[in-house]
Order: sequence, then C-alpha cells, then structure tokens
Amino acid sequence: MLILSNDEIESLLTMDGAMALLEKAYHAQAAGKATYRPRADLYVPSPAEGGVYAFKSMEGGMADPPVVALRLNSDVIHWEHRGGTLVKDKIPRAPGGQWVGLVLLFSAATGEPLAIFPDGVMQRIRVAATSALAAARMAREDASVLGMLGSGWQAGSHVPAICAVRKIKRVQIFSPTKANRERFAGEMAALTGIECLAVESAEAAAAGSDILVAATNAASPVVKPEWLKPGMFLTCVKDSELGEATIRKCDRVVIHVRRHAPDNYIAGIDEKVSAHDPIDVLSGKTSASEAEPPPFWTANPEMKHLISGKVPGRASRDEITCFINNIGIGLQFAALGAAVLEQARAKGVGRELPTEWFTQTVHP
Amino acid sequence: MLILSNDEIESLLTMDGAMALLEKAYHAQAAGKATYRPRADLYVPSPAEGGVYAFKSMEGGMADPPVVALRLNSDVIHWEHRGGTLVKDKIPRAPGGQWVGLVLLFSAATGEPLAIFPDGVMQRIRVAATSALAAARMAREDASVLGMLGSGWQAGSHVPAICAVRKIKRVQIFSPTKANRERFAGEMAALTGIECLAVESAEAAAAGSDILVAATNAASPVVKPEWLKPGMFLTCVKDSELGEATIRKCDRVVIHVRRHAPDNYIAGIDEKVSAHDPIDVLSGKTSASEAEPPPFWTANPEMKHLISGKVPGRASRDEITCFINNIGIGLQFAALGAAVLEQARAKGVGRELPTEWFTQTVHP
Repeated sequence: MLILSNDEIESLLTMDGAMALLEKAYHAQAAGKATYRPRADLYVPSPAEGGVYAFKSMEGGMADPPVVALRLNSDVIHWEHRGGTLVKDKIPRAPGGQWVGLVLLFSAATGEPLAIFPDGVMQRIRVAATSALAAARMAREDASVLGMLGSGWQAGSHVPAICAVRKIKRVQIFSPTKANRERFAGEMAALTGIECLAVESAEAAAAGSDILVAATNAASPVVKPEWLKPGMFLTCVKDSELGEATIRKCDRVVIHVRRHAPDNYIAGIDEKVSAHDPIDVLSGKTSASEAEPPPFWTANPEMKHLISGKVPGRASRDEITCFINNIGIGLQFAALGAAVLEQARAKGVGRELPTEWFTQTVHP
Repeated sequence: MLILSNDEIESLLTMDGAMALLEKAYHAQAAGKATYRPRADLYVPSPAEGGVYAFKSMEGGMADPPVVALRLNSDVIHWEHRGGTLVKDKIPRAPGGQWVGLVLLFSAATGEPLAIFPDGVMQRIRVAATSALAAARMAREDASVLGMLGSGWQAGSHVPAICAVRKIKRVQIFSPTKANRERFAGEMAALTGIECLAVESAEAAAAGSDILVAATNAASPVVKPEWLKPGMFLTCVKDSELGEATIRKCDRVVIHVRRHAPDNYIAGIDEKVSAHDPIDVLSGKTSASEAEPPPFWTANPEMKHLISGKVPGRASRDEITCFINNIGIGLQFAALGAAVLEQARAKGVGRELPTEWFTQTVHP
C-alpha cells in the first residue's frame, strides 16, 4: 500500500500522458468496460464558525487495468457573495492550515488497497486534460487566441492543456483582482512561452478569442451570451459558470456526464437534494423538493460519445461549440491513478505501508 | 491519523456501549443533526476467474461529536445456488487470502482525517446492536426463546446482543451444515451461559421461539410465513432473508432506513440499478429498467422513528412484530468510530501516522 504526495504525483504525471490515459478510459466507458458512481455530497453542521461541513465522494474503475478509485473531499465550506457573484470557499482547517482531499486506489483483481494520495495535483490535471480532450475535437483547427476567466489552480492547468492541443498565439486573461491576473499572466507566459495578457474585464478576455475557458470558483454565470461569436469553442470547470442563456446560444454542446449535479444528503432533510451548491436549501430559503430539476442541457451527448466517435465535435467552421465539464467522475482518478502507481513502483517513489494494515481475516 | 486493527477495536467496543452510541445517533438523526449517504455499489468485470468486482461505499456523520465516517468494501464477488438458495460469497483474494473493508473517519470541525481501520469487527457489532435496539422495543418483555438461523459471523454477534436486551433461556440454532450449527451452539453456550441447541431444520429453530433472527448470507427467503406465531418478534440482517409473504404476515414492521437497496452502477449499463444483488442484471437475464421497484415495505417507519418514540415498537402481546435491518448506513460507523477513536487515544492504542501525509497545501 503506497502513500504518495502531491509533489511525487506531479513528477509522475504529464498533461500529455493524462490526456492519453483519459482518452483510453472514455473509450473503455463507451465499450462497457468501465463505469463510475456519481458524486454525492454529505452535509452536516460544523462547529467551525460560519461553516458547514461537506464530505464529497465519487468512485470509478475499469477492467483494464483492473483498478478502482475512490476520491473524497472533507471540507469546511463557506459561501459568500463577492462582487455580485456567489462564491464557494473551502476553508483549510486541517492541522497546518491544510485542505483534505484523497484518492484511494484498489485492485479489481484482488480487492486489495493499492495506494492513498492527496487529490489536488491529479484533480487539477484531470479537469484540464478533460477540457483539452474536448478542445481537440470541438475547437477550430486554427484556433489561436485563448480567453481565460480565472487565475487560480484550475486556470493554471487549463492554459498549458489548451496550448497542448491547439497552436495558441495569445492568451487573454481576466480575473477580478488586478494583482492576481497580472501575476498569473506572468506565470503563464513563463510556462508556455506564449504572449499572455492580463485584461480589464471578462468581456475583454472573450473578445476575439477562439477558445474561451471559464475556470473560476463562481457559482453563478461569468460568461455572457453576447460574447459568443461564430466558430468559438467554450468550456468551463463547472456548468454554473455558463448559465442557461449562454449554453442555449451554442450550436453544439457536449457534456462530461449526464448526471448534472451531486446528490446532496443534508442533516435534517429527508429527501435527497440534487444541486451543485445546495446553499438555498441549507439556509432554509428553498425546500428540498423545490430544488433544481435536471437542467435542459443534460440531454446532450457525453464525453464518452465524443471520444468514441459516436458524435462529432464540430461540423462547420462557424458553429459555436461548448463542452460543459459539468462534474468530475471517479473513473478519471482510476485511469490516472493506475498509471501513476505503476510508474511510482517502477521508480521506487512513495512510502510503502504494510498492506495487512488495510486488509482483514474476517468476512465483513 | 490513527491506524487501528480489528483486535484493537474489539478490545475497545462492547455490545452495550455500541447500543448506547447507536441510540444517540438515531436520536440525532431524528433531530436533524446527523445524516447519511446511502450505500452505492460499483461493479466492474474482474480478471479473477468466475468473479465480478464490487466496490461498496456509504457515508454518514453527525454534529456531536463532529465526525463523519466513510465505510467501503472492495470485494471479488461470487454468486452460486446452494441447496435451492442463492448465496453471495466475497472471495478473499487480497494478499494472505484476506478481505478488504475499511472505515475512514474525518473531523467535521476541521476536515482532517482521524483514523483508518478495517470494518469487520465494527460491522458485526453495529448490525447486531441495531437488531438488539429494535428487539428492546419490539419483542415481548418476557421473550425467552431465541430462534437463530445462521451460524456465521453475524449470527455470532446477534446471540449475545439479543441476550443483552431480553432474558433468553434457550437458543435454537439452525444452519444447513450440521458441523457448523453444532460448533456454533457450543460456542454460544460457552459465551452466554445459556442453553443453546443445534436443531435439524429452520422450522425447528422457529418453533416455539419468541424472537426469530435470520443472520445468514442468503439472497432468497429463509423464513416461511407459517412459522410466525402471535407475539413473535422477527428480524434479519438483510430483507432478502424474509421475503414478501413473511413480511406481510407481520402486524407491525419497522425498517432500518427507507432506502431499500443500494444504487448499483454497472459497467456497460447506463442506468442506475436499484437492487440488493443485481445478479440478474449482471448476468444479462434482466435489463436494468426491469430491475426491482421499491418494495412495499419501504413505507414503514424507520429506526429513527422507533428510537425517538415517534412510533411504538409493540402495541399488544399478540402482535407479530418485525424489524427489517435492511441495509447499513455510514452513520453507524461514525457513531461507533468516534467513540472507539476517543478511547484508543486515551489508552494509547493503535499506530499513529503523520496527518500531513493525508492533507494538502493546495485547494483541490
């Protein structure tokens, strides 16, 4: 049973490698050889001031290699309105001011636990690699200007990921805090060797862009429909960043998976609440039964259909295409995790713990 | 982050203690201060011969103490018909011929991981303690004969648990293999100091019993309706042991939780399959959409209603009462786990691992 760190995972996983692994996993999913259990979030009151505790989990796995991953997050959550936008923060309250997200890998051949590691680096790479797999099929071949909304952890992996699949000549970056977008533009220019400009508004980032990426922590829309122009490809790290009017303006939409939102289980509420951020239900503003129905866009094809060639990514130069990277799945962690583990073993990276600490002689 | 073993947990958790902890947790659940995410099972093909791999998970937690538990099982599964009954086996394929079931505890105050331990001992105690909590409210006060179907791990915890809540004078034990039931009768007599008889049939175990417990691994009914007599209390470790006709013969039914079966996610099947043992869907005999609807008994009150006094357990001497211990919930592991952890810390039991191996400096 191997314990790995984020640094070790970063040394073992490249963006190109992640894209190839995910592509194989979506093919396996389309062929009925892989599946996932959709994300569910559990909410209980937290003694932390102003906080609600959320335990998030998802699973997925495949027959080849025979690996199943559980990914979990254990977070004290805080929501607030910031500049007219609802923002969700995970408060790092674990010892040393840290966050808690873990991936556990298991063998589908023997059942044994194979590895435990933090989810952060892999999470970042898998989201961006998934967006880039979509961009490779849905963006125009000659797309050269990338508009980027956001300057955080997810934005930082999306810039190199998109640059890996299209010959980007300029990146136009907006995030609300001037210092953040300028720092980020500098970092991305150094990383990619491409011209990266910090711009004054989201609209300016979108203007003239062939690919527009929203990679923010906004729980309300940040892309206006009038910013979309013929031939553009649009993506996001969660559907709430786009909103209905913007999605309706797109000619072709592919979604990551049909399950639009986590199933939320909230102390004091008997019904399951299906919503990305059940803040209104948690705060008593909305009853559970009034919570959102599946949104209109869930009828679109999924990533597995795009990857397996069942649906095209783009049918003409002028189509506005959109990939809604709406929710993660455990299968992504199984695919990347299995490869990271194989490399870690080959290179002697990580800390081995006795497997028998995590197995048992009794039939549970 | 503490690693505990089954032996350590056994040394820290008594049946009486478990019953008191679970009682408190169900009260918290009734009061809206605790909740759970129902069990889900993920199925992928396993390279193990004749096997299917299943990853089972459930979560639950409460505000006081602020602890959330994830319980998982990682099993190579094999089904077979044995003497006319469909039996599910978990094949111990992990190194050393071991099974894999784990509980992970997290703090709802800080998010930090608190402990990891195998689930076997706690699983056994929580199922029996839950049955006994029901028996304490639903069996006749003067119940003195216990009929026991099964001679395995669950049966072994149910005998002392039932004996803890009623003055049992005789235990009548049946399981299909003569050597097993005789060995088990000897063990239970030694453990409880009560007369324990191995009998020749399930019907003989039921005859004259005031409390009848099915604690088998049968996926089809083992209790016939004609065995039920006025005043009897009946329970089980899963609803499949009882069957519709037997449950309909009961005058009063309480169920553990309303979710009747796990949500199953099966590679190659797009729909979620709701079934306790989706063997027919896995084998292609039944399509996912033909899978079982929620059974009639899910409309009955739940354990939290019984514990909080919202519904009575028995209204007359002659009622036939039944507790369907239909499916486990993560909340049980949170309640027992929090107490075990507190005691382990107080007594210096277990292996401490650095918490920072399981936390991270990045916002996931």
